[in-house]
Amino acid sequence: MSSNLKYGLIGSLGRLGSEVRNVFTEKGFKLVFEYDIEGEKFTEKPDVLIDCSLPGVFSKTISFIGRFNVPLVIATTGLNDEMITSLKEISKDLPVVQSYNYSIGIQILLKLTEIAKEILPGWDVEITETHHRFKKDKPSGTAKMIKEVFNDRDVNISSLRLGNVAGDHTVYFGGLGEVLSITHSATSRRTFAEGILRSAEFAVNQKNGFYSFHDVMFSK
Amino acid sequence: MSSNLKYGLIGSLGRLGSEVRNVFTEKGFKLVFEYDIEGEKFTEKPDVLIDCSLPGVFSKTISFIGRFNVPLVIATTGLNDEMITSLKEISKDLPVVQSYNYSIGIQILLKLTEIAKEILPGWDVEITETHHRFKKDKPSGTAKMIKEVFNDRDVNISSLRLGNVAGDHTVYFGGLGEVLSITHSATSRRTFAEGILRSAEFAVNQKNGFYSFHDVMFSK
Amino acid sequence: MSSNLKYGLIGSLGRLGSEVRNVFTEKGFKLVFEYDIEGEKFTEKPDVLIDCSLPGVFSKTISFIGRFNVPLVIATTGLNDEMITSLKEISKDLPVVQSYNYSIGIQILLKLTEIAKEILPGWDVEITETHHRFKKDKPSGTAKMIKEVFNDRDVNISSLRLGNVAGDHTVYFGGLGEVLSITHSATSRRTFAEGILRSAEFAVNQKNGFYSFHDVMFSK
Amino acid sequence: MSSNLKYGLIGSLGRLGSEVRNVFTEKGFKLVFEYDIEGEKFTEKPDVLIDCSLPGVFSKTISFIGRFNVPLVIATTGLNDEMITSLKEISKDLPVVQSYNYSIGIQILLKLTEIAKEILPGWDVEITETHHRFKKDKPSGTAKMIKEVFNDRDVNISSLRLGNVAGDHTVYFGGLGEVLSITHSATSRRTFAEGILRSAEFAVNQKNGFYSFHDVMFSK
Repeated sequence: MSSNLKYGLIGSLGRLGSEVRNVFTEKGFKLVFEYDIEGEKFTEKPDVLIDCSLPGVFSKTISFIGRFNVPLVIATTGLNDEMITSLKEISKDLPVVQSYNYSIGIQILLKLTEIAKEILPGWDVEITETHHRFKKDKPSGTAKMIKEVFNDRDVNISSLRLGNVAGDHTVYFGGLGEVLSITHSATSRRTFAEGILRSAEFAVNQKNGFYSFHDVMFSK
Repeated sequence: MSSNLKYGLIGSLGRLGSEVRNVFTEKGFKLVFEYDIEGEKFTEKPDVLIDCSLPGVFSKTISFIGRFNVPLVIATTGLNDEMITSLKEISKDLPVVQSYNYSIGIQILLKLTEIAKEILPGWDVEITETHHRFKKDKPSGTAKMIKEVFNDRDVNISSLRLGNVAGDHTVYFGGLGEVLSITHSATSRRTFAEGILRSAEFAVNQKNGFYSFHDVMFSK
Repeated sequence: MSSNLKYGLIGSLGRLGSEVRNVFTEKGFKLVFEYDIEGEKFTEKPDVLIDCSLPGVFSKTISFIGRFNVPLVIATTGLNDEMITSLKEISKDLPVVQSYNYSIGIQILLKLTEIAKEILPGWDVEITETHHRFKKDKPSGTAKMIKEVFNDRDVNISSLRLGNVAGDHTVYFGGLGEVLSITHSATSRRTFAEGILRSAEFAVNQKNGFYSFHDVMFSK
Repeated sequence: MSSNLKYGLIGSLGRLGSEVRNVFTEKGFKLVFEYDIEGEKFTEKPDVLIDCSLPGVFSKTISFIGRFNVPLVIATTGLNDEMITSLKEISKDLPVVQSYNYSIGIQILLKLTEIAKEILPGWDVEITETHHRFKKDKPSGTAKMIKEVFNDRDVNISSLRLGNVAGDHTVYFGGLGEVLSITHSATSRRTFAEGILRSAEFAVNQKNGFYSFHDVMFSK
């Protein structure tokens, strides 16, 4: 059903938008609508809309949804509460997938961490994260997401800043006689485009509703 | 019942055998039979037999089982299909626990690997294992256990032999844009001896049957 | 002199070739000749030839050298002994820079490996290399360069192929009681393109001869 | 000359003393004098004295030196200034090797770090150390030694506390496009015994003087 998916892309000329185009093209999906600073290009009504743009474009996104009446996958960061409320309203009539992080591997790291945590209650826990020297915040938002898995414990996070590392995260569990660790390394921006692809395939087969990327990954 | 356990130890002079002796002695268990390169020492009929030897000694193990008719916990690595079949035959009359790795952490590594495998069907998989230079078999029995999780795939195993490393195993999942890995490091051989202790206590209270260390860990 | 360098590029459509084009263009260098699967595009005689192709193209490279009579920087991996001999013959008449890895970090890895080798004569040695799933040769040329440091020993190389990893190499030294390791991770292919740029600038100012990237880095 | 070395061992029953005995015996060296809580055992005059005891035994060590007049290798930790001064006085007449850390690998880590630092002046630097949960001080003394190599820079040290890890240290150098790292992992106490062995072989062939373990490793 999704093998000949036709998609529309908002923010088609940005860095993530370009990566999305590459990945969707490889999969055989067809770009039939796009919108960016140069305006819109319309060929055909899409099956799904992908938004990789900025909050300032949000009203345009809403108008495109009204025009095409198709599922939405939105990767725009920095949405305010009002925008999220709008999306939830729309999701009563259409499937909407919204996330600030479409990395498949990070979702799995979180899932495995939850499972290990349950089985290893008395073990020591440490988290490390390594990013490029230009990263301003410390620790990373993802490291904080990992820490939240251990909600009742004060887990130490070590932050390293090195060259132009895209992003590495490790969770360690230390017992007497053994150490278990789970590591995720981002090697390129493509990982996010792959997560958006999965979300698009998910959205076109879903009931109306508001979904996270976690839902895409783990619901049947 | 198991507090004054009398045990027999095959491979009593090896590295793992020595560690087993330490841990069992601390627990108050009594070594009443042993067999190694110097021959056998018999004091009394054991309640359970522990085998920490090599595949070349397997026929001896079988004869000791015949002689004492007691449960067996076997940690020998590199057993061939015929040997496993023999053990399963024996387990119709006696409880037999068989595993290539008696650590808790490895059980969790296996569990997490199964979960990751399900979520990441198209990703590349690699397994590495590092052990001390004295280890005879290559790849390790544990690496083969990890490989079995991917039963339908030909997964590559890389084996490193370095100094006196107790045992490290890593499974890598590689997608376009990210790598996820799960690593287990044994920091001392004692881990395995404690798992064997748990298995011995389990075996003497069990019905006849063929058990894995997973059964010891997770069945009530 | 090298500020308006005109270059020819063999293997111009490959992954490394594309990166070379980006970096050389940023520097203001002009692509005047290229050769790849689609055939050749000739604009002008180049000042230097860059080869980022495969061993199967080697005879073409030789013919281009004969045709243009300009310095060569060759990054092709998996060259056989006969090919290296050819290059050395050519270097009597032209500057030739040949290396399997054009990164600064790898040069340092090699230097540190030499030092550690001298101090740790009886230790076990293992080499691992991880690259993207599209890499044809196994083990990598760089891993072979590291192995050459231990000229008198049969050192094991483990090769992993995962996703789109740019290139990781580790040398391990294992003693009884400790393991020392040195790891280099390329975080983007750009590293290599910048090393090739340095080498091109070096080659056009050099006497005839056969040079390594080590010469480019460390000779004045 | 050192192949039939006869040695005396002060603190022969302690944990390090026991490891020293194992390693020296494997090498074919002969224990001819020992001193511990049970008193002394004298067989023959030793060629070298090893001290693995405690500061409270220091006066005994001094008296044994006077009695045998042979080189000393001292691994006792917590010596005060007065004791160090005594050792330096003695070293005018005999070779004395003194260190608080006889790990060969850590010496090499420090050496390689110095070299890498010189070649990579603009790169980012990070240090990590991992130890067992019982370790009181943070960061480890060894991590501080590594930091001292970068005397003019404020290098970040990340400390992890996990299970019963013997001790891991890593130095990272991050450039744009690559990361170089050097890691040392202690896998057992044996590493220190091996360093003491090297020091004993060094001491018996040396002129009078006060030597560090660094001298043992790197002077010709």
